[in-house]
Amino acid sequence: MTVPQLYYFAIRGLGEYIRLLFTDNGINFEDIRFVSRSPEWKEAKMSMIFGQMPCLKHDGKEYAQTGTIMRHLARVHDLNGSTEDDATFLDMFFEGLRDCRQKYVRYIYFDEGTREDLVHKTLPDCLTNFEKLFNIHQGKFIIGDKPSYADYILFEELDVYTHLDATILDKFPSLKAFWEMMWQRPNLKAYLEKRKADGVWISVVEKGMH
Amino acid sequence: MTVPQLYYFAIRGLGEYIRLLFTDNGINFEDIRFVSRSPEWKEAKMSMIFGQMPCLKHDGKEYAQTGTIMRHLARVHDLNGSTEDDATFLDMFFEGLRDCRQKYVRYIYFDEGTREDLVHKTLPDCLTNFEKLFNIHQGKFIIGDKPSYADYILFEELDVYTHLDATILDKFPSLKAFWEMMWQRPNLKAYLEKRKADGVWISVVEKGMH
Repeated sequence: MTVPQLYYFAIRGLGEYIRLLFTDNGINFEDIRFVSRSPEWKEAKMSMIFGQMPCLKHDGKEYAQTGTIMRHLARVHDLNGSTEDDATFLDMFFEGLRDCRQKYVRYIYFDEGTREDLVHKTLPDCLTNFEKLFNIHQGKFIIGDKPSYADYILFEELDVYTHLDATILDKFPSLKAFWEMMWQRPNLKAYLEKRKADGVWISVVEKGMH
Repeated sequence: MTVPQLYYFAIRGLGEYIRLLFTDNGINFEDIRFVSRSPEWKEAKMSMIFGQMPCLKHDGKEYAQTGTIMRHLARVHDLNGSTEDDATFLDMFFEGLRDCRQKYVRYIYFDEGTREDLVHKTLPDCLTNFEKLFNIHQGKFIIGDKPSYADYILFEELDVYTHLDATILDKFPSLKAFWEMMWQRPNLKAYLEKRKADGVWISVVEKGMH
């Protein structure tokens, strides 16, 4: 078994979900980071399936697309729930998170809407849905007491939103407890603290952050 | 076994992938169509997870999100390839199609870019990738000679693009042959012809179409 290689930019972005999944599950991986717009990235881009990262290479195979990589890793590493209902619920939760992320991205990269709207309307609307979905199943993760791939996506999204407004989770007790619990996961804690100390950017542009 | 109910707008949009999957596989379903901005839709919206369609209801369960519904149906109806590699490849193909769709949507609904750019640059760039991916496996479908859920998405996307430019597939022989073949599928032919005769819209706004 070779070590999987993750290719992504030197930011958190979409690649961070994958890094968190590997790190929390103690799966050794090579974390290859490109500087955006660098000659190295421009060259690597030419060879990639859609000219995009994240890109995962493993055992001679190449995987593109965040959702595809996360769902593949979920199946391979038993992070996809235990039934068809679980798999569908996790998939739906991820897709909802993705819609919300899209709104954040449209603000950050495309100047759509205001920071005010995002922090006081758009994100709370999303979080209201996520809180409701989170509470459908018992347990400290999205489904029960075992993490799934969608937990890493939820955690990263919540963490990103707290950078826009440190109190944004206060009205969502289940999500806040989940976010705090994830920060203390034995395999994540040191990684997250180092990430914070290093000041790793969330996006290629930093905007509206504390 | 109850009949699944598909809730979607009275357009093709994202719900069309699901209709095509059901229709081609001879799966009986209730095709419930809402007029955009109608009081009926505004009321139904309130009860839906994320307040969005497509929404699939079946055996007392409710499914939201296009990707989630398609992947769920793929697993349940054996339309997901036969190996982990197949499932991942199909997932990746779909995600690539989705990125391309997103560019089309940004033009149609958000006036981003020009029709000229879309037809002569953006879509052909996508199609170049899809032609390459399509040719990786033998057979008349994305993988082999058995349809998968991603084939319905590919077919719908190709068909939409031919409405913008009837010759757009001419430079992509494998995709064009696939698109023509799908039009002749025994269970799809009559549906597609009726859809055409009825002039069912692709999006809520029609723009740049022939």
